Amino acid sequence: MPRPLITLTTDFGTADHFVAAMKGVILTIHPTARIVDITHEVPPFSVLEGAFLLDEGARWFPRGTIHVAVVDPGVGSARRPILVEAGGHLYVGPDNGIFSMVRRRAASSRAREITNRKLMLPSVSNTFHGRDIFAPVAAHLAKGVTPAKVGKLIPDALLLRAAVPEQTNKRTWTGTILHVDQFGNLITSFGPDEASRLRDRPFELTAGFETIRHWAAFYADQPFGQLFAIKGSSGFIEICMNQASAAKKLGCAAGAPVELTIF
Amino acid sequence: MPRPLITLTTDFGTADHFVAAMKGVILTIHPTARIVDITHEVPPFSVLEGAFLLDEGARWFPRGTIHVAVVDPGVGSARRPILVEAGGHLYVGPDNGIFSMVRRRAASSRAREITNRKLMLPSVSNTFHGRDIFAPVAAHLAKGVTPAKVGKLIPDALLLRAAVPEQTNKRTWTGTILHVDQFGNLITSFGPDEASRLRDRPFELTAGFETIRHWAAFYADQPFGQLFAIKGSSGFIEICMNQASAAKKLGCAAGAPVELTIF
Amino acid sequence: MPRPLITLTTDFGTADHFVAAMKGVILTIHPTARIVDITHEVPPFSVLEGAFLLDEGARWFPRGTIHVAVVDPGVGSARRPILVEAGGHLYVGPDNGIFSMVRRRAASSRAREITNRKLMLPSVSNTFHGRDIFAPVAAHLAKGVTPAKVGKLIPDALLLRAAVPEQTNKRTWTGTILHVDQFGNLITSFGPDEASRLRDRPFELTAGFETIRHWAAFYADQPFGQLFAIKGSSGFIEICMNQASAAKKLGCAAGAPVELTIF
Repeated sequence: MPRPLITLTTDFGTADHFVAAMKGVILTIHPTARIVDITHEVPPFSVLEGAFLLDEGARWFPRGTIHVAVVDPGVGSARRPILVEAGGHLYVGPDNGIFSMVRRRAASSRAREITNRKLMLPSVSNTFHGRDIFAPVAAHLAKGVTPAKVGKLIPDALLLRAAVPEQTNKRTWTGTILHVDQFGNLITSFGPDEASRLRDRPFELTAGFETIRHWAAFYADQPFGQLFAIKGSSGFIEICMNQASAAKKLGCAAGAPVELTIF
Repeated sequence: MPRPLITLTTDFGTADHFVAAMKGVILTIHPTARIVDITHEVPPFSVLEGAFLLDEGARWFPRGTIHVAVVDPGVGSARRPILVEAGGHLYVGPDNGIFSMVRRRAASSRAREITNRKLMLPSVSNTFHGRDIFAPVAAHLAKGVTPAKVGKLIPDALLLRAAVPEQTNKRTWTGTILHVDQFGNLITSFGPDEASRLRDRPFELTAGFETIRHWAAFYADQPFGQLFAIKGSSGFIEICMNQASAAKKLGCAAGAPVELTIF
Repeated sequence: MPRPLITLTTDFGTADHFVAAMKGVILTIHPTARIVDITHEVPPFSVLEGAFLLDEGARWFPRGTIHVAVVDPGVGSARRPILVEAGGHLYVGPDNGIFSMVRRRAASSRAREITNRKLMLPSVSNTFHGRDIFAPVAAHLAKGVTPAKVGKLIPDALLLRAAVPEQTNKRTWTGTILHVDQFGNLITSFGPDEASRLRDRPFELTAGFETIRHWAAFYADQPFGQLFAIKGSSGFIEICMNQASAAKKLGCAAGAPVELTIF
């Protein structure tokens, strides 16, 4: 059995020393740790996008992986540090909803408040719990410390009422843009169920300034300049343009509403 | 013998979960895999710049390294997934010319179509072959699967007619800007042969709005604000300014033509 | 004992092949090397910010770690390549002041000029000593080559007169913005001593267009839109806004002066 992997998901960017400080702390506690970045470019303070990106990255890692997620505008305030066990993976981070999507996808999950000071750095700052609490706890877990040693189970860890599409009348649903990816594709909160219905029915998907009526099997399936919907690699419906940014065309960002009508 | 390295070159950026998904897939199949990023910031859909960056990064890795390259606007269409054997390295990616430069540099090379479904993820999407085909094939190769198990040799894998300078009259050659680097240096397609001629002869190098007539031995060898040519670390002639962006001064990007006259 | 880590700090960015070339060189010489990035986004040519980020990242790594730092506008000129021994860590890079902060923090330190050609690549370019000198020297050190084999001690390695606050009258000190982080927080050169005084005394901190008079225990401790000072995770006083960019509000960048008056 190789030792468990540790992944990192933050909004720290890669220009500063923050991520390196977390890695140094992990490697000091656990010198043979193996660390993989999911992303450090969650839009600053965007807990919902962090929850989406963490889930989309983490789900491909082997069972037993320990995921550290730090999008943490409330660092130093009363928000609790937590450990989540879900689907055979461990997750460490702030109790602000960042684990909502991994918990929703898992058949079952539970959360613990991190209270064991022996697993943290000796001095805990008010501004950088990624380095002082979450990184060292993850390193100790990777070395074999059990979740029960980290802290007690808590029943009320925060779950975001993340954008689950809502039916507004017989043929219409309202959802949300969960994320805009590198290519300007807009990932909506409409999932595999809605995707399978769109394939063979006329539909209208309205977001920002545009209404989309085309369905595509793959990106290059449509002419340049044409907006279309596709079942993305995450299973969610995406709004795309072939080799162009749908986000720019629609003037839309994460969090924007999107309406789906199926005829 | 340490196990082979796997490198990744894509246009996915690092803000999304795409690269992490590929790494998770590799580490699930091959838990002790060692993965190194070449770059994930190939300009989106720019196969030529991807081919340049892949070759410039990959050539420094030890023999036996497996390189995954995904700049793939045609994902999901009829373009084939391929495996290239060149210069003792293996390369995995789409058949769209991305391996043109590594194949040109190698004394010999050959390509196979990737057809063995057992080496792919069980479900292959239309939008993300990096995760579903190329990452798992690379992981299996790193574990010891032989190229022959991946698929049959094909004679007609695509080779870009990449910018090889063309002589237009007795003293004049036309080339191309292959890449603009982080510092705004413009890497031209004029190679070591032209570089050795420029060192002791008057010349004119014309690109964008400017004509360059100065040759430098190193960057700090010229005054601020002076455009000059230099033999870059890749062996190609670069157009540079000392501590400033030549690309901004010239108003030039990758793909732009550049003309060289030697007197 | 696990083998020593190698960290990398550069201004190369991550879009080009430069960092990958350095990693390939290291892994060719030392196939089981473990490499961690501190950052590759030091503002181009900014030796002072590089010195700050290197120190802030490197200090969290275990003793014995080898740190390569390449912010090197003078590459190819007469500036020497050096090896610094400080605080149980090794540092490799150009002699331009990039190691000033790690040397200041260490109880003692010493520098050697790198002269042993056998530890460099066979052919050393004028433009990329990161690949041709610093990466291979670090790889050899990680494999067990001793510092004494690298070159002789030199007494005069460059130390930046980095921004140490200066007292300008009985109640007033002048310092510098050392760095602007990802969130727009301004890290000043005022350290833990000044921070402890500000906690219970009225003060004025003036930078750019604004004067700050509020002290906060943590980021979310202040209302939106309020500028405040805080003891940052590095121990330095930072100027911040809760979930907004203080740098934009003040119109300030690294290098700008900042004045502190304590009443």
